[in-house]
Amino acid sequence: MAAIIPVSFVGAETGSYRVLRMNTVLGAPLAAVAAVTPHPSHLPDSAPGVTWVLRGTNSAVRYVERAEAQALAAVQPAIGRPNCSHAALIPIRKSDAWWNLTQDERRAIFEARSNHIASCLKYLPAIARRLHHSRELGEPFDFLTWFEYEAQHAQLFEELVQMLRATEEWNYVDGEIDIRLVKSV
Amino acid sequence: MAAIIPVSFVGAETGSYRVLRMNTVLGAPLAAVAAVTPHPSHLPDSAPGVTWVLRGTNSAVRYVERAEAQALAAVQPAIGRPNCSHAALIPIRKSDAWWNLTQDERRAIFEARSNHIASCLKYLPAIARRLHHSRELGEPFDFLTWFEYEAQHAQLFEELVQMLRATEEWNYVDGEIDIRLVKSV
Repeated sequence: MAAIIPVSFVGAETGSYRVLRMNTVLGAPLAAVAAVTPHPSHLPDSAPGVTWVLRGTNSAVRYVERAEAQALAAVQPAIGRPNCSHAALIPIRKSDAWWNLTQDERRAIFEARSNHIASCLKYLPAIARRLHHSRELGEPFDFLTWFEYEAQHAQLFEELVQMLRATEEWNYVDGEIDIRLVKSV
Repeated sequence: MAAIIPVSFVGAETGSYRVLRMNTVLGAPLAAVAAVTPHPSHLPDSAPGVTWVLRGTNSAVRYVERAEAQALAAVQPAIGRPNCSHAALIPIRKSDAWWNLTQDERRAIFEARSNHIASCLKYLPAIARRLHHSRELGEPFDFLTWFEYEAQHAQLFEELVQMLRATEEWNYVDGEIDIRLVKSV
């Protein structure tokens, strides 16, 4: 669990997930692609046929406390369940106002007032989720969140995304792309 | 303040700082070099005459709370004061046991029990310090801390380093290299 997991999400014409739709929610758009492939390493920007590469690293939790970690561990599913045909990649950028806050102020907005962790528990184990940190890598987004779920949970996922966008925490989001995907056959 | 600052520390035969001494405190050693140069970007590993490159990013605080941030801001000096001929680069790696802790547990060890922030205030403004995060970059160390001070404060710096090594927090350090430097003339 303490190991880091580097990931690159590659946007291209073909790949392991086909793009169902791609929507700029806030901020600068990302070039349209037909497919996205996750790769377990930090790849360079340019390769033949590649439109963009977004890099991130799954690493230690930044806000979760012990009791919350235990609650999550009890219901949190792993990435890679074979029945999960659907996926989403949601790159997020947070504002300077967010990054100028101190740890206690960010935690208060994240959980005490936005209930980020508690509210998400409702969507587990249906929706698997992995957060990747990108900010320290000098990437255009600060976070890349990857979700996996079964076709029957598409509406539940929609509800999760709308719930998060309505929180106080989301006032600090100034860039968000919503990419919905389905496994290539 | 919210901007990230990417840095590479380049170990080579020549450079902007001459190595006074280089000591493996804990864990795997780093190849001996005669000079270290900080560069304001993430450089690739290999270049002619370069022995090693350590990369990190100065970014948002992870444990500091608002009251502490204000206390620090009042006395914390900037990097680059012309009278600071002396510097130190201390790459640190923390154990899996540390990274498996949750945010509240790490904060308790960091400040409530190790007094990391409060104890360091005593050494300001004599010693300037900048922390760079490396873990998400897939680097061999998790943190690279860079210090700058005047020749007359070399003993004070020694005291700061010994104080930190005696804390509970340091039980979670499993790699540490101590590189003392002086500006090349």
